[in-house]
Amino acid sequence: MKEAFMFSQRMAQLSKALWKAVEKDWQRWIKPYDLNINEHHILWIAHHLKGASISDVANFGVMHVSTAFNFSKKLEERGLLTFSKKEDDKRNTYIEITPAGDDLIFDLMEQYNPESNLVFSGSEPLREVFGKFPDLAELMTIIKNIYGDDFMDIFETSIHNIERDFDEENGELKRAERPQTSG
Amino acid sequence: MKEAFMFSQRMAQLSKALWKAVEKDWQRWIKPYDLNINEHHILWIAHHLKGASISDVANFGVMHVSTAFNFSKKLEERGLLTFSKKEDDKRNTYIEITPAGDDLIFDLMEQYNPESNLVFSGSEPLREVFGKFPDLAELMTIIKNIYGDDFMDIFETSIHNIERDFDEENGELKRAERPQTSG
Repeated sequence: MKEAFMFSQRMAQLSKALWKAVEKDWQRWIKPYDLNINEHHILWIAHHLKGASISDVANFGVMHVSTAFNFSKKLEERGLLTFSKKEDDKRNTYIEITPAGDDLIFDLMEQYNPESNLVFSGSEPLREVFGKFPDLAELMTIIKNIYGDDFMDIFETSIHNIERDFDEENGELKRAERPQTSG
Repeated sequence: MKEAFMFSQRMAQLSKALWKAVEKDWQRWIKPYDLNINEHHILWIAHHLKGASISDVANFGVMHVSTAFNFSKKLEERGLLTFSKKEDDKRNTYIEITPAGDDLIFDLMEQYNPESNLVFSGSEPLREVFGKFPDLAELMTIIKNIYGDDFMDIFETSIHNIERDFDEENGELKRAERPQTSG
């Protein structure tokens, strides 16, 4: 009981401190685009999960369904998302990112600057010692136990998809799947 | 650059998911006492750091100074904290927990139920495998690099102080330092 309580306090303090640093980094990063964290998170999910339902967005974005819906609506008004229904599933609302939304996601990736990122800077010494970024295996296991396998699958997919957005050879971003205008 | 970006996305998603679980656990735990997380966090810090300044509370509680001050004021109005100035330091405001505040902290510790705790339940399988709760060494190092040694010292002190609140022999909470009424 004492151990459990001490562990849960430890987790509470650590996770609050980590999240506040992540939140500060995230807000600073997206500020020029007049987005809040939830809006950017929804766009990010829509970029990685082609044809996500609002409930997928809520689950994977760890937000209320109403939050997911309301901010998606704002993104739709800005032309960054479109809403749709499926023929075989009239109950759920699906969102799809527009080319303007994808552009915004790519712009932000281009502007990402690790040097100004608290969490990156805090992890850099570990990378110098171990030759790679920490894999946080314990934390991953805890999240998996709380949120389930589907959550982790989508999580891993979205991380691996990032590789798809970078050119293998020169490491630069490729704004893929977009028809090239002939020059 | 790609690695840094992928790592920072991984950290952002994991830390959001972890914090949302911690937040839900924390809110459920303190709900019967009509406190929000910041208010409980301030009381908790005041319980562990005798004579903390508002700026200590803000630093260690990872909140704005104005948040620390405003919620401390509410706790003072409820008789859970007192405010004071020090003779040799008129600029800073210090808070001290009252006996009623300590009672509330002990009541909450008594009512803590690991079974209803998402983060505890998510960590329990790791404890079964390894015989102890995960120590999250990588995460601790990242937090230390971001927030500094003082933050970690206070963090460790507050966790170890919890031991002081439990009786060594029977593992029950002792409402220490309180004058016993003779029976």
